[in-house]
Amino acid sequence: MTTTLNLLIIGCGRIGKMHVDNVLQNFPHVHIQAIIDDHLDTDWAKTRHLNVLPKTAFAETLQDQSIQAVLIAASSAEHVDLITQSAKAGKHIFCEKPISFDVELLDEIDTLTKQQGVKLQVGLNRRFDPEFVRAKAVLDSGEIGEPHIIKITNRDPLRPELNFIPRSGGLFLDFNIHDLDMLRFISGAEITEVYAMGANLIDPKIGKLGDLDTTIISVKLSNGALCAIDSSRETHYGYDQRLEIFGSKGKATVHNTRPTSTHALTEQGTSSGKLHWSFVERYAEAYRQQLADFFHALETDGAVPVGYQEIKQAVLAALAAQQSFENNQPITL
Amino acid sequence: MTTTLNLLIIGCGRIGKMHVDNVLQNFPHVHIQAIIDDHLDTDWAKTRHLNVLPKTAFAETLQDQSIQAVLIAASSAEHVDLITQSAKAGKHIFCEKPISFDVELLDEIDTLTKQQGVKLQVGLNRRFDPEFVRAKAVLDSGEIGEPHIIKITNRDPLRPELNFIPRSGGLFLDFNIHDLDMLRFISGAEITEVYAMGANLIDPKIGKLGDLDTTIISVKLSNGALCAIDSSRETHYGYDQRLEIFGSKGKATVHNTRPTSTHALTEQGTSSGKLHWSFVERYAEAYRQQLADFFHALETDGAVPVGYQEIKQAVLAALAAQQSFENNQPITL
Amino acid sequence: MTTTLNLLIIGCGRIGKMHVDNVLQNFPHVHIQAIIDDHLDTDWAKTRHLNVLPKTAFAETLQDQSIQAVLIAASSAEHVDLITQSAKAGKHIFCEKPISFDVELLDEIDTLTKQQGVKLQVGLNRRFDPEFVRAKAVLDSGEIGEPHIIKITNRDPLRPELNFIPRSGGLFLDFNIHDLDMLRFISGAEITEVYAMGANLIDPKIGKLGDLDTTIISVKLSNGALCAIDSSRETHYGYDQRLEIFGSKGKATVHNTRPTSTHALTEQGTSSGKLHWSFVERYAEAYRQQLADFFHALETDGAVPVGYQEIKQAVLAALAAQQSFENNQPITL
Amino acid sequence: MTTTLNLLIIGCGRIGKMHVDNVLQNFPHVHIQAIIDDHLDTDWAKTRHLNVLPKTAFAETLQDQSIQAVLIAASSAEHVDLITQSAKAGKHIFCEKPISFDVELLDEIDTLTKQQGVKLQVGLNRRFDPEFVRAKAVLDSGEIGEPHIIKITNRDPLRPELNFIPRSGGLFLDFNIHDLDMLRFISGAEITEVYAMGANLIDPKIGKLGDLDTTIISVKLSNGALCAIDSSRETHYGYDQRLEIFGSKGKATVHNTRPTSTHALTEQGTSSGKLHWSFVERYAEAYRQQLADFFHALETDGAVPVGYQEIKQAVLAALAAQQSFENNQPITL
Repeated sequence: MTTTLNLLIIGCGRIGKMHVDNVLQNFPHVHIQAIIDDHLDTDWAKTRHLNVLPKTAFAETLQDQSIQAVLIAASSAEHVDLITQSAKAGKHIFCEKPISFDVELLDEIDTLTKQQGVKLQVGLNRRFDPEFVRAKAVLDSGEIGEPHIIKITNRDPLRPELNFIPRSGGLFLDFNIHDLDMLRFISGAEITEVYAMGANLIDPKIGKLGDLDTTIISVKLSNGALCAIDSSRETHYGYDQRLEIFGSKGKATVHNTRPTSTHALTEQGTSSGKLHWSFVERYAEAYRQQLADFFHALETDGAVPVGYQEIKQAVLAALAAQQSFENNQPITL
Repeated sequence: MTTTLNLLIIGCGRIGKMHVDNVLQNFPHVHIQAIIDDHLDTDWAKTRHLNVLPKTAFAETLQDQSIQAVLIAASSAEHVDLITQSAKAGKHIFCEKPISFDVELLDEIDTLTKQQGVKLQVGLNRRFDPEFVRAKAVLDSGEIGEPHIIKITNRDPLRPELNFIPRSGGLFLDFNIHDLDMLRFISGAEITEVYAMGANLIDPKIGKLGDLDTTIISVKLSNGALCAIDSSRETHYGYDQRLEIFGSKGKATVHNTRPTSTHALTEQGTSSGKLHWSFVERYAEAYRQQLADFFHALETDGAVPVGYQEIKQAVLAALAAQQSFENNQPITL
Repeated sequence: MTTTLNLLIIGCGRIGKMHVDNVLQNFPHVHIQAIIDDHLDTDWAKTRHLNVLPKTAFAETLQDQSIQAVLIAASSAEHVDLITQSAKAGKHIFCEKPISFDVELLDEIDTLTKQQGVKLQVGLNRRFDPEFVRAKAVLDSGEIGEPHIIKITNRDPLRPELNFIPRSGGLFLDFNIHDLDMLRFISGAEITEVYAMGANLIDPKIGKLGDLDTTIISVKLSNGALCAIDSSRETHYGYDQRLEIFGSKGKATVHNTRPTSTHALTEQGTSSGKLHWSFVERYAEAYRQQLADFFHALETDGAVPVGYQEIKQAVLAALAAQQSFENNQPITL
Repeated sequence: MTTTLNLLIIGCGRIGKMHVDNVLQNFPHVHIQAIIDDHLDTDWAKTRHLNVLPKTAFAETLQDQSIQAVLIAASSAEHVDLITQSAKAGKHIFCEKPISFDVELLDEIDTLTKQQGVKLQVGLNRRFDPEFVRAKAVLDSGEIGEPHIIKITNRDPLRPELNFIPRSGGLFLDFNIHDLDMLRFISGAEITEVYAMGANLIDPKIGKLGDLDTTIISVKLSNGALCAIDSSRETHYGYDQRLEIFGSKGKATVHNTRPTSTHALTEQGTSSGKLHWSFVERYAEAYRQQLADFFHALETDGAVPVGYQEIKQAVLAALAAQQSFENNQPITL
């Protein structure tokens, strides 16, 4: 196919690699002009025929007029700087969440991208998951009435490496930010109040690093609905991702999806396949769809589906949850 | 069979009638000496060959030495007085929850029943449900490790009659008292902190009567676990009763049970049977089992499985939830 | 309650005992006048306050004018004789299936019971199972259209004792007779053609005794529908009892029911509760309901729901399956 | 990526188009040199930048030495001729099933491809479905013991266009050929006996064209297992594709997969998402995987996973089913 879009990707770790393969397999009209990464596995890059450049080449590469967009999958600490450079070079930007936990910086970035006339999409990928999208459609159809209670479960299969904890932003900002954004996405309402309980139950080393591994957050929405989020860093049984919308006429439920429906029944009991084990598998279609929407926005000069407002509100809610936990008080937004 | 136990029943509304039929069908050795109720349907009583007496006959009937136990299913407001009379007459007592929301009165009753050497069992029936019992057994077996998160959903199919609201005690004390007790039952731990959100979303008339119809309660337990309870007065889709115990090694889930597993699949989609519609059906076995245990305690002079401590702690937790809601503050117990 | 029916029970093995407890627990107005059994466990009988008599007392007891009905749960070989004696004594009869595999004898019994004016109900209990009854109701409602395919799975958890095999009648007559009757019950149509495959796969000792342990039967019904029955003597995972009705507009499915819905999810996978382990548990309600209907027929002098026609057609179909297997030919009825 | 394989595709209807998109999206190293089709939608081809040629160009295009393989998705009647031409031109071949219902022609093709040293893979796509593959893996692992009963359900959502019926080969050869092949795939055993019942229940017009719309086939395998296949041309509720392997120690079940797990529960009952509606969706991954394996066989000069033997045995079994139905006799293979 003819290339219609030249893309520069910066940061090619686990998520960056997934984006690369997504582009190669699903978007034949998008060409990856170059990958900026200092530590990329050469074999991996070679089999994909990628042009890999060091970080030091970023500024110069941005001057390449044939590149229309930059996809940022570098570490969170670099997001603001990379967005700033890309925007100043007139490139459209897709950036992984969270960009920044500093709301003033988010505001500055918004101002800059608007001045420069570039689009900025943020990787709040769960908004693109077909299951959550369908649940929202059921709610929006009126079939289950007005929302009264929304519940989200968000649990990882295994605790992260301990060295990730200090740079994660903490459980509320690293993890629950997705859930708080999901509440806004599903309901179309604003978060007005947050109360958070947290605990360190899985591994005392996480606690010594100043973080939690288990949370329950109560949320009030501007439409009056009450919400409960529960999350954990470790299930051992898989990636547990569920949602329930309970309304005035019924409920819609998103169950866990599984790689296979096949199961065995023996003297020992039922042995079904495990849940998905990572966000890469569970949200594969969501990751694909958010890129499709990003590329579509560029091609049609339309609005990106998730941007500054979404990440700002999610960060504000996650900061409120953090503050609520620290003060053991409900926080009004 | 030979009768081994003579029972007096006072109060024969919906729950009282269920107890009567439970005794007639399941406990051939238990004889219902008399039913005390001023408004009992004569036909219903006649087909069951019951001896129905007016309330005015209660005091005298208590003097009948052949009666060993009194089952109290009268209205909540009468619980304390009826227990006091029965205890003074030396009868063992089974009383529906809540007995009283006044903890001092609960203490007085405890003292009295101990002085009189009579047993007092309280109708916290859900502790006898085979599903919850099995979930607790899974937790106690160690299969899912130490509890980290416990979640309970408690939703009625249809809002109650409005005239019930003022004498219900309010949603926390009428409804969530079961859930708070369930947390203690499942975990074997104490409730140490409660934060409650509440809303009036179903019917503004409930709000005008000073009550809520939707709640979310966050709870901390003495073993460190975090809990979330959500409840509603009206689902339209059935009696929604679920429990999840998430532990350090896995989770145990109590799904809703259904009257039938048969379902149909057509062009219109899947049409499965509805959920159970009332506590009478959903907890039928629990209601039977709690009587079996009560009768067994009398016959063996053993301890009753649910008594003063259980109802007192549940009332204290429900009062804390009420207070938390009113002050919008977490309450430490 | 006042006794309105005096019942004589003959044969008190596993099924007989279940009937006794069913009567004691569910039908207070039915009195078990006596149990005829030479090998009954004395303790079991004593705790139930039963009047146990030896077989030699049967003829005389039948002369007791206060007895209205006889429940026959003795071994299959005795069914015809016991029915004959009971009918001649003017007693109504409930007899376990199969009565006889000799259709002429079935005809003679029909003639006799009609002459004597006594009712004869046969224990084809699965017709009373709430799940199958609901599936039939779905079909009868028209929701899934006209039946095109009916599938039945019938599998026991564990092979029977080898000494049972020779007196079982063989797998088609002992086991599939239920399935063939179920096809008639569900469809309201007649069986017109049968083709049976059989195998001895579980235990060669079963084969040496001349029986099969695994069968697949293809059936044509008079309404044009095609049916498939599969059965096995041993699953190891529980009592596998399923039914599917596929019609011109959709399908209705009866899944296996389970003692509990609670399940656990851990690193090892899902561990749900096992299926029911025996017909006693799986069909508990069906066994209760068939007695309720029998007693109701006696009390109202109405027709019994399952009688001579049902067992005769089921026997004919099972004999055809047996013959089809032996000749490896489809058999037209 | 660098192209490593040049492919010629002949026939670009519904299935051909699916193959084209599969190649474009999943196999960047495979280049579609040309598409041979006289009726291809120009817009569809243009957006994919395809080189479309008329049928008359086929013979000449085969002379293109840069083409290594031909993918045949033309109508069944042309399969033998197209394979013959391609093989003579020294091209490797992927051909949709059934190639031919004439076993002698299949033998001739086998001889020819072996003489020419070209590989021939046949599109028995279900062997590549992850669900069936997992079920086979469960059986092969020994977890459920030796196979005793295998059951397959194969039902289309909507009857085909009537003009398709005469050129379909009939239900046994068009439809059940997949199921008969699946039995061989799952069990690794041979089909030794077949008995088929068939009916025309959905639409009398199908019967007038000499075909059936509903079948039940009983099958014996060389390992002693018994099998039941049921199929229908029309469910109205979706594409119903299920498999059960029942073995000496337990069973493995492949349930229907669904596009989404999300469902709603309201006063009207449960409304879940429908089943998949077509083989294109249900077997998307199988279609992708079979091409991956074909390309892999070419690149490594390895054996193709499904070839002459598989299609020949499946055709023989389907012909036996047809003959069994016509004679109403079991057929031994």
